[in-house]
Amino acid sequence: MKKTINILIALIMAAGLVSCNNGGDQKSKKGGQGGLATNAAERVYVAPGEHDEFYGFMSGGFSGQLGVYGLPSGRLLKVLPVFSQNPENGWGYSEETKPMLNTSYGFVPWDDSHHPDISQTNGVLDGRWIFINGNNTPRIARIGLKSFKTEEIIEIPNSAGNHSSSFITENTEYVVAGTRFSVPVPQKDMSINEYKGNFKGALTFINVDQETGRMGIKFQLMMPGFNYDLSHPGRDKSHGWFFFTTYNTEEAHSLLEVNASQNDKDFIAAVNWKVIEEYVNNGGGTKVPANYAHNILDEHTHTATSTMLKEVLTVNPMDVPGAVYFLPTPKSPHGCDVDPTGEYIIGNGKLSADLTVHSFTKMLDAIENKKFDGEAYGIPILNFEDILAGVVKQPGLGPLHTEFDGNGNAYTTFFISSEVVKWKVGTWEVLDRQPVFYSVGHGMIPGGNSRKPFGKYFVALNKITKDRYLPTGPELTQSAQLFDITGDKMELLLDFPTIGEPHYAAAIPAELVAPNSTKIFKLAENKHKYAVLQDSDVRVERDGKDVHIYMNMIRSHFNPDNIEGVKVGDKVYFHITNHEQDFDVPHGFAVIGANNAELLIMPGATETLLWEPKQVGVWPFYCTDFCSALHQEMQGYIRVSPADSNIELSWSLGED
Amino acid sequence: MKKTINILIALIMAAGLVSCNNGGDQKSKKGGQGGLATNAAERVYVAPGEHDEFYGFMSGGFSGQLGVYGLPSGRLLKVLPVFSQNPENGWGYSEETKPMLNTSYGFVPWDDSHHPDISQTNGVLDGRWIFINGNNTPRIARIGLKSFKTEEIIEIPNSAGNHSSSFITENTEYVVAGTRFSVPVPQKDMSINEYKGNFKGALTFINVDQETGRMGIKFQLMMPGFNYDLSHPGRDKSHGWFFFTTYNTEEAHSLLEVNASQNDKDFIAAVNWKVIEEYVNNGGGTKVPANYAHNILDEHTHTATSTMLKEVLTVNPMDVPGAVYFLPTPKSPHGCDVDPTGEYIIGNGKLSADLTVHSFTKMLDAIENKKFDGEAYGIPILNFEDILAGVVKQPGLGPLHTEFDGNGNAYTTFFISSEVVKWKVGTWEVLDRQPVFYSVGHGMIPGGNSRKPFGKYFVALNKITKDRYLPTGPELTQSAQLFDITGDKMELLLDFPTIGEPHYAAAIPAELVAPNSTKIFKLAENKHKYAVLQDSDVRVERDGKDVHIYMNMIRSHFNPDNIEGVKVGDKVYFHITNHEQDFDVPHGFAVIGANNAELLIMPGATETLLWEPKQVGVWPFYCTDFCSALHQEMQGYIRVSPADSNIELSWSLGED
Repeated sequence: MKKTINILIALIMAAGLVSCNNGGDQKSKKGGQGGLATNAAERVYVAPGEHDEFYGFMSGGFSGQLGVYGLPSGRLLKVLPVFSQNPENGWGYSEETKPMLNTSYGFVPWDDSHHPDISQTNGVLDGRWIFINGNNTPRIARIGLKSFKTEEIIEIPNSAGNHSSSFITENTEYVVAGTRFSVPVPQKDMSINEYKGNFKGALTFINVDQETGRMGIKFQLMMPGFNYDLSHPGRDKSHGWFFFTTYNTEEAHSLLEVNASQNDKDFIAAVNWKVIEEYVNNGGGTKVPANYAHNILDEHTHTATSTMLKEVLTVNPMDVPGAVYFLPTPKSPHGCDVDPTGEYIIGNGKLSADLTVHSFTKMLDAIENKKFDGEAYGIPILNFEDILAGVVKQPGLGPLHTEFDGNGNAYTTFFISSEVVKWKVGTWEVLDRQPVFYSVGHGMIPGGNSRKPFGKYFVALNKITKDRYLPTGPELTQSAQLFDITGDKMELLLDFPTIGEPHYAAAIPAELVAPNSTKIFKLAENKHKYAVLQDSDVRVERDGKDVHIYMNMIRSHFNPDNIEGVKVGDKVYFHITNHEQDFDVPHGFAVIGANNAELLIMPGATETLLWEPKQVGVWPFYCTDFCSALHQEMQGYIRVSPADSNIELSWSLGED
Repeated sequence: MKKTINILIALIMAAGLVSCNNGGDQKSKKGGQGGLATNAAERVYVAPGEHDEFYGFMSGGFSGQLGVYGLPSGRLLKVLPVFSQNPENGWGYSEETKPMLNTSYGFVPWDDSHHPDISQTNGVLDGRWIFINGNNTPRIARIGLKSFKTEEIIEIPNSAGNHSSSFITENTEYVVAGTRFSVPVPQKDMSINEYKGNFKGALTFINVDQETGRMGIKFQLMMPGFNYDLSHPGRDKSHGWFFFTTYNTEEAHSLLEVNASQNDKDFIAAVNWKVIEEYVNNGGGTKVPANYAHNILDEHTHTATSTMLKEVLTVNPMDVPGAVYFLPTPKSPHGCDVDPTGEYIIGNGKLSADLTVHSFTKMLDAIENKKFDGEAYGIPILNFEDILAGVVKQPGLGPLHTEFDGNGNAYTTFFISSEVVKWKVGTWEVLDRQPVFYSVGHGMIPGGNSRKPFGKYFVALNKITKDRYLPTGPELTQSAQLFDITGDKMELLLDFPTIGEPHYAAAIPAELVAPNSTKIFKLAENKHKYAVLQDSDVRVERDGKDVHIYMNMIRSHFNPDNIEGVKVGDKVYFHITNHEQDFDVPHGFAVIGANNAELLIMPGATETLLWEPKQVGVWPFYCTDFCSALHQEMQGYIRVSPADSNIELSWSLGED
């Protein structure tokens, strides 16, 4: 056993070193790399005042957020806070946003965001919303592409490691969230050794309201205790189906690098969600108790509410004939990708020498003719040869993910051999290969997961960086590489660093999003309970130990800006309304020495900072976002008196 | 009064609109902007595999962190966590790093980082450390430029708004931290109306150990209750002096945008720190009680300890003849900049039409000849005309900061008129002006704050972004613009977005930092109390309710990876050692549903995650940083039993 491990490790590390050496030679030779385009500089340059052609949304991975990049420049336009606290703008620290990070486990300050997917209509990107999964504490978030804010987060019960998520069906009917780890369902105290046959893997289908985007769990399919790795929807002809890769069909619970790499083939699970939808619409399924949070940020108050839901509808695949089939797929398949026509399902077997492509048509035929090759926990296993569309033979080492350009070509990333391979869908012929630096994970083509890819660029999301940038200590930022794929051969244009770890990305032409982007929040539409819409509403009120400060701000003062009568032991709530109605004029707010982050308050919005003063004294507060020539003058003082003081609340703006 | 405010606001907003309109016209016209360089694309392009020429360190502003950018590419190479929690790598969440954010106010999760400054030897950048101030909770941090980690944070007592900081003297003898807001010293319960004459402004001199970089407060100078805005050290001939701008010499405490803009001139305070140093070395000054935290990250354990210090040495300027003088400077001066020769001190009067330059030689002469024009709180005021070196006449509106290129030229940023103006030091002649988009704050030339600037690039750190990038909702990232300044005229090369709000930046040639950068932490030198250096040390121990898991990790498994015997109500400490000894191979660690962030563990290091399980069940843990082809298999399970369970601790790796 020990030997097996060592061989595996040696194999992988050696492969890694080879790819590093490849890269090392290329350093400092301008244009020296295979496939580096002529005029690459000009082709990625976005001149001052011009705009990028695409929005690229890259998951933050272990940052828990979502990065917004411009393509082709590779510039980081914004970090959208989603699942993790963000001291920069008070996300998860302000009273309005704390409930967004609420879960059945309590307040969770972090997550591991993985796979963004943009909403679609008729299989084409529509730019309404982007969804992303929290891999750790199982959650799905919906981000509005007008407000560029996280508007909703729903927790996924009975799940653990929400990895094969968050992919959408072609009319955004469902967002799908599949568990990575199987666990006891419901959770209970049992020995880990009892895993096999007892742990379960939940595949969750979340329906989306087409007007509001609101999510609700329609049903959870309770699957065998495998690991569910990735998934993609069927489209066009295969619309109505969803495909999930599995690994660890061995159901090992320890040393998986060896014990989950034993089977020659694992499965892709093909789920006919339309059949299950009909079953549950007719009263099928079992409601079971489950605690999970549903958090919504109201669009008029920018205030989150968190509701704890109490039950979920589960479906046993055995109860729905025709709902689930297993497609045997070599070997520990990772990515599960469906081509734009919906005919081909690619299983990227990460320990396989070949790339396996299943045919949807053949799959339907095999099902109809009951050509099964046994079953697993009652789920029919189709015969590998019967459903095989083709094999891309020995294209590289360690295939992970495949994207499509809309012109009949596919692009597969190879982690171990550090390359991207272009091949022809249908002929399975390899057309081109380009090295990447180093060890690529996902790749991304704008719209690559839809019926209509915008096949201009391919972005390699590389996992290992090493010598690609100036060193920054033992930790380097992950790296991406941009290729032009409009020609026969891929042309490398640009290396650009990425924050966190982009596990996947989704990009969309800017023209589908930019014109609708919110510039300000209208003050007149501000329905926040503590909004101060006019100066006459400015006040400070005490309610026992709670002190509510109704404050507003505009260049370059706070109203009120001198406050007295607060005491040690109080809970002081600064409710601050930004009266600006001008694009890109937020104000910030902070109090010296608060045990909290700051607020960054958008034009027209109200945000609340809780401050629990511990020391008597006179404490300054100030605007933290340089806003005008007199920004430094935008400050005030709050006096804190002893707990037993008799000083009454008073406040003022102005005259000395 | 109300009228005055409205006029001021109208003036500033109108100026802002003008600059926006300027920019709007330029959109989509390639090369259409005044000063845009030919071949700009090629001049900023760093081809795949090549490296940037400079490290640019940009303060995160309201993010509290420090961004590392490559120049000329403008690529964000890394975000170094300093003062704020960083869910991405567990900074401020792990047991090792929590003490780094400790203060006399308790744990503070955020700050407002402002002015990075790189260590110097003989007035030249030496690449050992970079210092940066926390503006909010007064703190100074030291970041090692080998490890690229925040190695030390010291709190500044008697201070509130640590803004005129953290600038260093030319042999890194001192890091200086000046308060922005004046407050009661010591803090006490008093009316805000008693501000005038009673509040104080502390200017703190922190000495730096030349071997270790360790900081200690040498003394605090107790100054009148003005606002201290920015500062810079004298150099070369003026080495031994430090210069601080003041505003609000009116000592207003409310509506400062009007009430602190009344005086025709405020002051630059010239502090002869060598005289004060001698005074305190001879026993001068008064030790006063003060609580402030001193936090150090040990280099062998990567574990922080926080010590609360109890007293500080204060100096009354009246007690040290020759220590402090006031230089009258129009009007509410913001930046305080000293040219490379040390002769000229530029006061950037933000409401002044002209730019005032003081002469150090004339200042000494005036002091020697006692040419005073009164005093303020006993501090002599020099005569404006006597010390005037020259005036740059009507160069623009709203001057904020000035940098130098080492060739006798100065570059001043103008916030209101949104431009950078190049002028000749000595003749005060305007040589060039270029518009910036929009409303520039600081500017930065690599080494611009030293005797030896590397005058190749100027970076404008702009405050308003508006239409410069694809819209991302009401909030846009701040923006920088890179100019080539090697010719007679500045040439605009690139717009690039910046995270947080870069209040200032410091850049250094890569060759002075990159060769020394730490690639791994040597496992053999790991002195962490809970390190597991060999498999035989792997174990799980119970100490009452505390459970300590001594774990290690290497591609691609944890040891142990199955753990039982943990109970609800326990405090579970995962102490995890990364056994990799390969550059850029961190591993991550997270437990499903923990109320904590993840760990990102560097090669050779040990980090600790505290988990307080609330629910019985079997919970997966996994590596969060894609590390190998079998990364997905790098997982384990921990069983949580009821609080009253009798199950003993057990653990395992391996065989099924």
